Amino acid sequence: MNFQEEVQKFIQEHFQNTLPTIALDLVIFGFHENQLKVLLLRWKGGDYWMLPGGRVYKKEDVDDAATRILRERTKLEMLFLQQFHVFGKLNRSSYFSAQETYKLLGIENLYSPDFRDVSVGYYALVEYTKVNPVADNFSDECRWWSIDELPCLLFDHNDIIRVALKTLRRQLSYQPVGYNLLPEIFSMTDLQSLYETILGRQLDRRNFYKQMMTYGILELSESSPKIASRKTPYLYRFKKERYEQLLDDEELTIG
Amino acid sequence: MNFQEEVQKFIQEHFQNTLPTIALDLVIFGFHENQLKVLLLRWKGGDYWMLPGGRVYKKEDVDDAATRILRERTKLEMLFLQQFHVFGKLNRSSYFSAQETYKLLGIENLYSPDFRDVSVGYYALVEYTKVNPVADNFSDECRWWSIDELPCLLFDHNDIIRVALKTLRRQLSYQPVGYNLLPEIFSMTDLQSLYETILGRQLDRRNFYKQMMTYGILELSESSPKIASRKTPYLYRFKKERYEQLLDDEELTIG
Repeated sequence: MNFQEEVQKFIQEHFQNTLPTIALDLVIFGFHENQLKVLLLRWKGGDYWMLPGGRVYKKEDVDDAATRILRERTKLEMLFLQQFHVFGKLNRSSYFSAQETYKLLGIENLYSPDFRDVSVGYYALVEYTKVNPVADNFSDECRWWSIDELPCLLFDHNDIIRVALKTLRRQLSYQPVGYNLLPEIFSMTDLQSLYETILGRQLDRRNFYKQMMTYGILELSESSPKIASRKTPYLYRFKKERYEQLLDDEELTIG
Repeated sequence: MNFQEEVQKFIQEHFQNTLPTIALDLVIFGFHENQLKVLLLRWKGGDYWMLPGGRVYKKEDVDDAATRILRERTKLEMLFLQQFHVFGKLNRSSYFSAQETYKLLGIENLYSPDFRDVSVGYYALVEYTKVNPVADNFSDECRWWSIDELPCLLFDHNDIIRVALKTLRRQLSYQPVGYNLLPEIFSMTDLQSLYETILGRQLDRRNFYKQMMTYGILELSESSPKIASRKTPYLYRFKKERYEQLLDDEELTIG
């Protein structure tokens, strides 16, 4: 069975077991070296990139399907995952037409002008160092891309990332987002740098410190120096219970 | 053709022309006598209430379908309409099982345990006095209900309203919401009262005034008194362009 036949067989079987018309796309954010990154897949045998995604089994909650797909690509449990937008345009191709896309993917025989998927977008926040990105059956590669250097993605996936980033920025104002993106122990400078990277602008150091303390989600780590200096700053960890209470209040999902 | 046959015929035809598995539900908010209200439909021949909703035609954008459904129920153009959440649980029945629901609706012969809809929730803000609620083919009545006095709705529609209200409350903090819910001319007290009703708590009068002025979206109406008193307060109108610019920045839909 060649690749095209294999894809065709998989897709036909998978479509029989999953809901029609609905696909999920996942924007998985990580933070490394002061850059915000997303996980992308490269389709087998080409140089075309796309978001990880999947479909919903007939007897599966939509949110559970998103959690499952996220686990498959990251091999992590306990992840921050949130539904953020439905992408429901009739034409969801930004750079290539639907027909061109099928051709680029080497599956033009599967193309039908009547086929249509509405995509439910989810975004996830994961700790960069803990993730071992896993390609799926149809990808040669799964790796991090800096959001400032994204290639032209298939379908409307650049749009999906843009809206996910906008949502993340907006949520920073009423929600502590750092917990899932930072290592367990971090300095206030690390945390501020994360916020600045997401927001794309500088923040005032004293106001930032005050805002974080108001949330009541930080405590000094036992490995923190007793007296801080520029070279050995105070080290913090998140108070998990308080953080999760804040998440609950906003009804966020921890997978 | 009796009612049940008519419903069956309509549903079968409608399903052939629309996307499978996806339904839309609309939470249409209005504001009247210091109460936040939502539009509900009463199914023909019974006392069971639900949200207005519909399906997406095969060649129609999902957002366009929501706009169309909103127009059909309110007969208004130019409405504030925003997608807010996907309700994708396998079991979307809060008070009655799916089978019971079909029975209550008098369409038990249409029930199938394999049928499933994922609902995309939209909320709309409309000016109460301008709306003439229109029932659909399968409803005896379409009318306003105060959100404090909702009956037990069919499916998961109480949940959908709860999440819509939560979204509306959250958006108040970064967005001027009053434009679509108030009449053209209003006092600062009217506007504050709207905010207090949505938030479910009292606000400080001076801070509220300051915040509204910071948005830069209000101007004095020509019908405002030159010097205000308690009985004849200043009257404002929204600056439409500035308001829409703020909407654009947050990518909201005006249908």
